[in-house]
Amino acid sequence: MNLKFLPGPVELPPEVLAAAGRPMIDHRGPEFAELVRRVADRGQKVYQTKNDVLPLTGSGTTGMEASVLNFFYPGDKIVATSIGYFGDRWIEIAERRKAINVVCFVKPWGKDINPEELDGFLRRHSDAKGVLITHNETSTGVTNDLRELARVVRRHNMLVVVDAVSSMSAVPVLTDEWDLDIVVSATQKGFMSPPGLAMVSVSERAWRSYDSEKAGSYCLDLAMVKEFLTKGQTPSTPPLSVFFALDKALEMILQEGLQKVFLRHAKVAERLRRGVVSLGCSLFASPHCLSDAVTTVTMPKTLDAAVIKKLLREEHGFAIGGGMKEFSHKIIRLGHLGDVDEENADQVLAALKECIKKEPCL
Amino acid sequence: MNLKFLPGPVELPPEVLAAAGRPMIDHRGPEFAELVRRVADRGQKVYQTKNDVLPLTGSGTTGMEASVLNFFYPGDKIVATSIGYFGDRWIEIAERRKAINVVCFVKPWGKDINPEELDGFLRRHSDAKGVLITHNETSTGVTNDLRELARVVRRHNMLVVVDAVSSMSAVPVLTDEWDLDIVVSATQKGFMSPPGLAMVSVSERAWRSYDSEKAGSYCLDLAMVKEFLTKGQTPSTPPLSVFFALDKALEMILQEGLQKVFLRHAKVAERLRRGVVSLGCSLFASPHCLSDAVTTVTMPKTLDAAVIKKLLREEHGFAIGGGMKEFSHKIIRLGHLGDVDEENADQVLAALKECIKKEPCL
Repeated sequence: MNLKFLPGPVELPPEVLAAAGRPMIDHRGPEFAELVRRVADRGQKVYQTKNDVLPLTGSGTTGMEASVLNFFYPGDKIVATSIGYFGDRWIEIAERRKAINVVCFVKPWGKDINPEELDGFLRRHSDAKGVLITHNETSTGVTNDLRELARVVRRHNMLVVVDAVSSMSAVPVLTDEWDLDIVVSATQKGFMSPPGLAMVSVSERAWRSYDSEKAGSYCLDLAMVKEFLTKGQTPSTPPLSVFFALDKALEMILQEGLQKVFLRHAKVAERLRRGVVSLGCSLFASPHCLSDAVTTVTMPKTLDAAVIKKLLREEHGFAIGGGMKEFSHKIIRLGHLGDVDEENADQVLAALKECIKKEPCL
Repeated sequence: MNLKFLPGPVELPPEVLAAAGRPMIDHRGPEFAELVRRVADRGQKVYQTKNDVLPLTGSGTTGMEASVLNFFYPGDKIVATSIGYFGDRWIEIAERRKAINVVCFVKPWGKDINPEELDGFLRRHSDAKGVLITHNETSTGVTNDLRELARVVRRHNMLVVVDAVSSMSAVPVLTDEWDLDIVVSATQKGFMSPPGLAMVSVSERAWRSYDSEKAGSYCLDLAMVKEFLTKGQTPSTPPLSVFFALDKALEMILQEGLQKVFLRHAKVAERLRRGVVSLGCSLFASPHCLSDAVTTVTMPKTLDAAVIKKLLREEHGFAIGGGMKEFSHKIIRLGHLGDVDEENADQVLAALKECIKKEPCL
């Protein structure tokens, strides 16, 4: 099965897979100390930050929950924005922490957040401590203008908390230049590694607001992760295979060069967008906020997107993403994250063309 | 580096390593559905239970925290027992959930819990909802008499919550026969797989006491894991490499036969115990509760255990466990979990003999 266009977990380069199959090591020994420090250092380069990039066993969701639990406490107000499925998930995560006051700022699927609108909303919630923002919404193929949104949030002197799970290392995230406080990513997207590890960067400002007495979890305690990282360790046993793979993938990403990686993703996205439109499909997301990491494609009204997805899988060997929630019969989602190029784009477009031809009209 | 005697992560059989390096699959597709169901089924066989065995991305600690967060709520009283480092960790996990009333029952390192003593303690805390018990304490090499302790706890009509991280699939855990409510394990010990996944079994009785409104986490929400498992999925992206490896390891364990696996562990332990005593060392744990999964060895007073550990590593290529906390210069810890046999025991004993000969007396 070809996973090049699945919006994660993505297909891994052979070198990364080989690393995932390396023998175990002692996670309290010198070899792991070197490994975890190298991964954290390389992570900082991709994040474009001097802040610690802290590894956390789990999925991207684990990082999203950690960012809430560590920095928002009973009585705090948090503004949770959402432009789709994963924004909604973050709202649910925050709301499960019952003592936090969560106010939601939700846009329809396919739209991004307008900075002026957010500004107005934050003016009405000036007592909020921070704002949750999805950088790239995997369910809708929309990329928020994170730089502008962060500027608005910082003007209100609130913490900027970012879900960069499907943007990091695929599109630029300038953590320090954009003044982002907490940025969450995960291994199975642009980092082209197996799932199992989240990464969270934390600014000095966020740490100043941290209160260990109030951060209510053990496994997700980022201060403990930070403390152990200085010793070259993690608080509990780390997912070694994922670390081995991520280390190799980071080496490859930095060897290619970050800007080249971003350009490659942008080119694949552009090629896909032109291609699907030429096949009679349309783009689901609004034109000004199209993602370079995930392309969501609205099928012509006469076609069932779920059937197209099935045909792509069964007859052409491409696993892709389907529309989520009420969009399962209307859109397909093509991830283009990690080890993917324009030639791959042409391949999936050719397969899609076949499927559209074959699928009898509704 | 030989990890055969590290108390986790353990050395993996080549077939398991090869599985860890398998290409990714779609975690929302049919192939993963089959995989996760097979792993859960095989997990039930090792757990000797009809309860669901729920996979949870994380380390053993993640499972320990999940067992507290899901079933103990603000105002509940919990009895947390400890016979060493990992029992203490569970106490800390429970105490971080501030609204829970945690009462501790702690024994000195090297000792187990006496069932009658626990009975007396529970009589004084008859309002407790459950009791946390370490089955095998990795820091001290002590195995609690879980069957008897569970009998006591059940007599008081409380939930039996078990850390079986370093016992499961190395020594017998009869989840149903012993009436255990919540049992936590992890992949990197007896399951001879890479770290990154915890497993938690939950009894019908525990589920009856479950209140989704009060279980305060998203990532650790076991009811959601249970619900997704019926669909052949996990709530968020699962650590696929670990699943691939665990699936293979479970196949190997069940092919060898559970009873044979237990017997092999017992034989290795017995051989190591005799061996270290014949070298002039002594056993750290009390004689009646010696673990068949981890052997803790007190060095002769003239020798520094930390130096012995270093020599074993640097001159013989054996990574082993050192004494934790104040025991780092006094004891060494030999794990014997997973893919280990009596011949391996002879090898590490021969290396230990060399180290003891070489190390100048203090």
